[in-house]
Amino acid sequence: MAKKSKYDAALERLQILLVETQHWTIDQGRKTVIVFEGRDSAGKDGAIKRITEYMSPRQTRIVALPKPSERETSQWYFQRYVPHLPADGETVLFNRSWYNRAGVEPVMGFCKPEQHAQFLADAPSFERILSDDGIVLIKLWLDISKAEQARRLAERIEDPLKRFKVSPLDAEAQARWEDYSKARDRMLEETDHNHAPWTVVATDDKKIARLNIIRHILRSVGGPGAAAEAPDPEVVFPASKSKGRLAP
Amino acid sequence: MAKKSKYDAALERLQILLVETQHWTIDQGRKTVIVFEGRDSAGKDGAIKRITEYMSPRQTRIVALPKPSERETSQWYFQRYVPHLPADGETVLFNRSWYNRAGVEPVMGFCKPEQHAQFLADAPSFERILSDDGIVLIKLWLDISKAEQARRLAERIEDPLKRFKVSPLDAEAQARWEDYSKARDRMLEETDHNHAPWTVVATDDKKIARLNIIRHILRSVGGPGAAAEAPDPEVVFPASKSKGRLAP
Amino acid sequence: MAKKSKYDAALERLQILLVETQHWTIDQGRKTVIVFEGRDSAGKDGAIKRITEYMSPRQTRIVALPKPSERETSQWYFQRYVPHLPADGETVLFNRSWYNRAGVEPVMGFCKPEQHAQFLADAPSFERILSDDGIVLIKLWLDISKAEQARRLAERIEDPLKRFKVSPLDAEAQARWEDYSKARDRMLEETDHNHAPWTVVATDDKKIARLNIIRHILRSVGGPGAAAEAPDPEVVFPASKSKGRLAP
Amino acid sequence: MAKKSKYDAALERLQILLVETQHWTIDQGRKTVIVFEGRDSAGKDGAIKRITEYMSPRQTRIVALPKPSERETSQWYFQRYVPHLPADGETVLFNRSWYNRAGVEPVMGFCKPEQHAQFLADAPSFERILSDDGIVLIKLWLDISKAEQARRLAERIEDPLKRFKVSPLDAEAQARWEDYSKARDRMLEETDHNHAPWTVVATDDKKIARLNIIRHILRSVGGPGAAAEAPDPEVVFPASKSKGRLAP
Repeated sequence: MAKKSKYDAALERLQILLVETQHWTIDQGRKTVIVFEGRDSAGKDGAIKRITEYMSPRQTRIVALPKPSERETSQWYFQRYVPHLPADGETVLFNRSWYNRAGVEPVMGFCKPEQHAQFLADAPSFERILSDDGIVLIKLWLDISKAEQARRLAERIEDPLKRFKVSPLDAEAQARWEDYSKARDRMLEETDHNHAPWTVVATDDKKIARLNIIRHILRSVGGPGAAAEAPDPEVVFPASKSKGRLAP
Repeated sequence: MAKKSKYDAALERLQILLVETQHWTIDQGRKTVIVFEGRDSAGKDGAIKRITEYMSPRQTRIVALPKPSERETSQWYFQRYVPHLPADGETVLFNRSWYNRAGVEPVMGFCKPEQHAQFLADAPSFERILSDDGIVLIKLWLDISKAEQARRLAERIEDPLKRFKVSPLDAEAQARWEDYSKARDRMLEETDHNHAPWTVVATDDKKIARLNIIRHILRSVGGPGAAAEAPDPEVVFPASKSKGRLAP
Repeated sequence: MAKKSKYDAALERLQILLVETQHWTIDQGRKTVIVFEGRDSAGKDGAIKRITEYMSPRQTRIVALPKPSERETSQWYFQRYVPHLPADGETVLFNRSWYNRAGVEPVMGFCKPEQHAQFLADAPSFERILSDDGIVLIKLWLDISKAEQARRLAERIEDPLKRFKVSPLDAEAQARWEDYSKARDRMLEETDHNHAPWTVVATDDKKIARLNIIRHILRSVGGPGAAAEAPDPEVVFPASKSKGRLAP
Repeated sequence: MAKKSKYDAALERLQILLVETQHWTIDQGRKTVIVFEGRDSAGKDGAIKRITEYMSPRQTRIVALPKPSERETSQWYFQRYVPHLPADGETVLFNRSWYNRAGVEPVMGFCKPEQHAQFLADAPSFERILSDDGIVLIKLWLDISKAEQARRLAERIEDPLKRFKVSPLDAEAQARWEDYSKARDRMLEETDHNHAPWTVVATDDKKIARLNIIRHILRSVGGPGAAAEAPDPEVVFPASKSKGRLAP
């Protein structure tokens, strides 16, 4: 009980700071994009839920796109993401993003190897143009261990409330673990750039992960958020320092 | 503590039933629209949050439209709501809806009296066409007493987490209480029809209101939901039986 | 050659009047919808081209929707037409419209008989709400004889410039001539209402049809258009007076 | 008369070839973007009209965006153009494009000099990603002399059919002639790249310009179009060879 209280209290303090920080971004007309990537069950939904819980519904959008339609599949790859980019003062959280083409798509064979390679070459250019336009782009990779993922996926199947979270792809997450690791490593290697760096978060402990994600976001956005406690460097670290620290 | 547990347990049972019921509506391809109306602070956001918490993100949409743009203002009044109507298997929850024109707009002088009257005449026709198309339309009026609203609005101002809920219109909610009552009565009188009836919910006790709203929705949607306990007739009742029971 | 000049001169005079009339509708903020219906090759494209040739590109839209997507098919029938309705000062020309469900769909078996019947019952309600909103709705049925249609469809196949006009449905237009006649008669019977009447145009002579369509539109829109010569009552007449005058 | 016939005959032959070529692009699923830029009255509308006259209405789109809304102005600069990019088999003609920011915007002071510079730096990256995606991008600069523009703008004012072509910016086109020349030169200099080169067209003779534009498009798209006669190198030439040949 004591521990839970402590987490709740810490979360609430950070949520208040998120509210204050968003007041500032709205006032300043700053545009923010936060990309959440990570293996299945790494905690993207839960983190997004806590971050946005008290944020302004009008200036915040969570974007979780469904499978592309046939028409979309034939369009420019980035096209279906672009309409969701923020206007002045808006914060957009992508729950999975254009980086599908660096993870699930190549691993599951939903795109061709040359499309994968092309994407890895184009993504930094695309993001640089967004960044040139004044969009603050925060890219998070939520890392999870193989054992913890197995535990969560099993738990999910048992829980009648999580029925809509269960997906036919869940089984593949464990079966193709190494392929996903390789895809992740290549993505972090090729798309980590100054104007849009990757930040890694260790998420085996969900609550600690959430608090540290919020701290990282607050300090990245700036304004009142700059006053946030620094995230724990064991939990949140730049991709450039992730050597040997990612789930193998 | 004991009481809280009881609510939590009851809510969870109903949420499980919502999940099962949505599986059925998806399977059957049924289209559902739930309209949430009510005075400010009557508990729309909180009810929607609990209802949708475990529903399928892909087949559920919450629609809370911002103020119309100048262009939208000049278009057909219902036009900006129509793109959000459900496809097969989808459930759409409107957090405020086209009924703005039967409440805040005439009360605050944002529309002309003849636009108000025209809307009250047109809404039943509009809804009948939707209903003819197979859309199940559930319209909820969340009723609250003047004293409870005053309490909630005051509380909101104190809470740093509710900063984005505070609006310049809050003060008007109490100041124009009677005008809102009259607008509500006229709306319930003129737009309560067989194909799209109004259901009233007494919300001074938020938790009791939430449980009963979910029971009403489950039984209205049908399928596995038909097995839900009947809502308390003191809390949830048809507009046609609301005489003398609405906050004056 | 002399005759062609006369048509060109008359057309130009009417186009100038269209320009003046549109200046007036823009100035007045009037919303106009013109629905073009009629059998294949009845001259819809050609008429729309002449009407819009000099109209304001910014305040004029031609809407010719493709086949509905699977998702659209499962939505409210009118839903995909609604986003194209006009804002203040705009004129929208529908090249085929929601009346697909009163013609090609029932004749070709693309909808069920009960959907056809439901549509015929709902269309007048839908149009009345638009009309209540101040939209001027002009519905034109371009009528053509069986022999003239046969001639045009044959000509089309020969012309390398009309390759994109040729459709697999062309053959059905003649083969199912009587079914189309019956569907037309039922449509005119059930959806001709005071707030949105049908006007029939005899189009076997394309040029005469075009001039008279424009005259009818000008006089229906009003303002400077009211000064247009009356259309020839042998060419343009209300559905209510079409008995015995439609292609059998 | 003889000369007119020759033009009409040549145009028709090219239009037939456009139809055949589009059949091929649809069949091959090729995506094509044609950007039309040039000073006011340089003949963009007329050229687009002839090119698209017999093309497939379903696979061809003409995009002429209105002034951006306030919200659009605050979004990523390229954002409002992206939804119009082609799907497989589609041809999109932009009547003015993102290059507004290299012409009218800096000349008229609608953007800041650093936004102008940023755009010139970003456009080639943006276009390269499109090109990597398989979009064939044809960029045309329609060049006109100062005297011919003066003549056309004057004529426009007299013609009651061209009332909607007259714009308050027309007067500025002549008054700021040199500024527009400088902006054009800088644009051609900085945004002419291998993957998206600029082609210049001399348009003082409209008909000759149209025929040569179509020839250039046909040969750029390929397939049956490759058989088109080469455009006249005095009328159509690459930006890289435009030194001393552009209207001063």
